[in-house]
Amino acid sequence: MLIDLGSAASFLKEKDNFTIITHAHPDGDTLGSGIGLCLALRALGKKANVINNEEIPPKFRYLEIEPQEFEEQTVVAVDIADVTLMGNSVKEIYETKVDLSLDHHGSNRLFAKLNYVDSSAAAAAQIIYELVELLGVRITPQMADCLYTGISTDTGCFRYANVTPATHRVAAKLMEYGADAAAINVKMFETKTRTYATLERLALDGMQFFYDGRCALITITRDMFAESGSDENECDGIAAISRQIEGVLVGVTMRERRDGTYKASVRTHNPVDASAICARLGGGGHPNAAGCQLPGTREEATKLLLDTIGEFI
Amino acid sequence: MLIDLGSAASFLKEKDNFTIITHAHPDGDTLGSGIGLCLALRALGKKANVINNEEIPPKFRYLEIEPQEFEEQTVVAVDIADVTLMGNSVKEIYETKVDLSLDHHGSNRLFAKLNYVDSSAAAAAQIIYELVELLGVRITPQMADCLYTGISTDTGCFRYANVTPATHRVAAKLMEYGADAAAINVKMFETKTRTYATLERLALDGMQFFYDGRCALITITRDMFAESGSDENECDGIAAISRQIEGVLVGVTMRERRDGTYKASVRTHNPVDASAICARLGGGGHPNAAGCQLPGTREEATKLLLDTIGEFI
Repeated sequence: MLIDLGSAASFLKEKDNFTIITHAHPDGDTLGSGIGLCLALRALGKKANVINNEEIPPKFRYLEIEPQEFEEQTVVAVDIADVTLMGNSVKEIYETKVDLSLDHHGSNRLFAKLNYVDSSAAAAAQIIYELVELLGVRITPQMADCLYTGISTDTGCFRYANVTPATHRVAAKLMEYGADAAAINVKMFETKTRTYATLERLALDGMQFFYDGRCALITITRDMFAESGSDENECDGIAAISRQIEGVLVGVTMRERRDGTYKASVRTHNPVDASAICARLGGGGHPNAAGCQLPGTREEATKLLLDTIGEFI
Repeated sequence: MLIDLGSAASFLKEKDNFTIITHAHPDGDTLGSGIGLCLALRALGKKANVINNEEIPPKFRYLEIEPQEFEEQTVVAVDIADVTLMGNSVKEIYETKVDLSLDHHGSNRLFAKLNYVDSSAAAAAQIIYELVELLGVRITPQMADCLYTGISTDTGCFRYANVTPATHRVAAKLMEYGADAAAINVKMFETKTRTYATLERLALDGMQFFYDGRCALITITRDMFAESGSDENECDGIAAISRQIEGVLVGVTMRERRDGTYKASVRTHNPVDASAICARLGGGGHPNAAGCQLPGTREEATKLLLDTIGEFI
C-alpha cells in the first residue's frame, strides 16, 4: 500500500524495536538514511538497529553506530527499490517481512506492507530529513552528518540533474543542525586511495577513442587490478571518466571478470540512450548510465559493443 | 570607504552608464558576477557593459553578452581584491577610477571610492544575488545562470569550506529563477578537453611520493605541454590531484616555464600550512593553497622544494 509521509511518521511513532535494512553494495545514501533514521528513532526513546548485507566500506565508517539489544518487532527498508537489491543474507530473512519502505526510486516495486516513495527527492536522505522533522526530533550533529552524507553522495555533491531547490534547502538546514559538510565532502570527493589512483592511471593510459571522438573506451583487465592492488569495488569512479572528455557522447568502461569475460558500464550524454544500448546486449539501466555483460574474449566483446554503439551515434 | 549593501544598491539606482570590471585570468565567479550585475542594471533601464582584461575562456562563453554603446560614467569592480589583480590593460585605465567595489575576499584592499566586502560570502555572485534582490530586479533565467555559475565554480560545486547555509539557499532561489544548474555543472565539472585529459594522464604517469607517502609530487614539463597540446592555462585542475591521494598531506605540482625554471603549486591538508612553505621560498597564498617560483634546474628545484616541505611534515 502507498502511504503519505505523515502516515509513515505516525506508524513509526506507534511502533518500537526497529530493524532498518539498507541495500547491498551500501552507498552513502542508504547508510546515511538508515543510520540517520535509526538515531532519530532512538532519540524518541525507541530501540533501533541498522542491518547491512555486508560490512560498511571503510570510507563510510565515520557513520557507524553501536548496535542495541532487543527483540525485533518492526522492519523498515530505506533506499531499496526492490527485494533483489537487498543482498542475499538480508533478502533471505526480510524479503516478505518489511513493514515500511521509504524510498526515492521511481522504479520502486512496492514490496513492503506500507510504502512511501517520492521520486522527486534527490536522495532517500532528503525524505528521511522531512520525516524526522515530522517526528518532532531535534536533529543532532550526528544525524545531520548522516543525512548530509546521503544527499551529498547521491547528487555528486549537488552536481546532478536530480538536485532541486528543496535539496539545497535541506542541505542548508542540515548545516545549521551541525553537519560538518566540508569535512564530509573531503572524505567523499577529494580522497582517492593509492590503489585507486594507480588503477585510474593505468585505465587512462589505455583509453581509446572511436567514431571521431564521440565514443571513448576504457578497458580494465585483471592484470591492472593485480598491478594496482585495486579491485572491482573501486571501479565506479572510473566509469564516469570517459564521458567527461569533450566531444564524447558515449563513454564506456569494460572490466574483466574473474572468468575472463567483460562487464560494460555505459555512460552517455543526451540524446544517446545508454539503457537502449545496453538493452540490445541483454542489460539495462538509466538513460545516461547503464550496464551489460558481454560474451567472448576481449576482442570479441569490444567489437560487439562498439558495433552496437555505432548504431546509436 | 566601507559601505553596506543597501548603500551599494542606492548608489547603483542613482547612477547610470556603468562599466563593470572583472579580474585577470577570469573565472566563473568574476564573470558570472559581472555579467549578472550588468544584466540586472540593464533590466533597470540603465546602460552597462562588462570589461575583461582578456578574452573570456571558451568554457565560460555561454555567459557572454552583447556590449552596448554609451559614454561611461560609473565604474564598478566585482570579485577584485586588489588593483594588481585587474590585469594590465584594465589596470592602466581603471586603477584609480573605481567608484564601487563589490567583493568577498577578506584580503580586499579597499581600492575603490565605495567598498562593500562580505568575506562570509562563498562567492562574489552570492553578494550580487543579494544586491539584485535589493534593487528589486526580477531575476531572469539568464541572470540566474550567471550567478549560479559564480557560486558553483567558487565552491567546487558546494564542496568547499566556504559554503554556508546561505549559499545553499541562494542556489535554491537561483534554480527557482530558472538557472539550468545541471547543464552548467556538466560544463564546469564534468567536461575535460582532449588536451587536458592527455596532460593529466602524462602528469599522473610521473607522480612520485616522498616522506612515507605524505608528500606527492607531479612535475609538468614543456615536453608534456607539447605532447598533449595543452598549456599552462589548463594546469589548475592538475594542482588539485596530488593532494587527493589518501595519506598525502602536501600535494605539489611543479610546472616548467618557458625559461626552463619551475613554478610550484602547493596544496595541503591541515595542519600543514602551504603559505608558510611557499613564503620560505619567496611565494605566498592561502593556508591550504599557495605557490612560489623556484630557481635552478628541475633537479635543483625539486630538491629545494622537497627539503623545505620536509621541515613542515
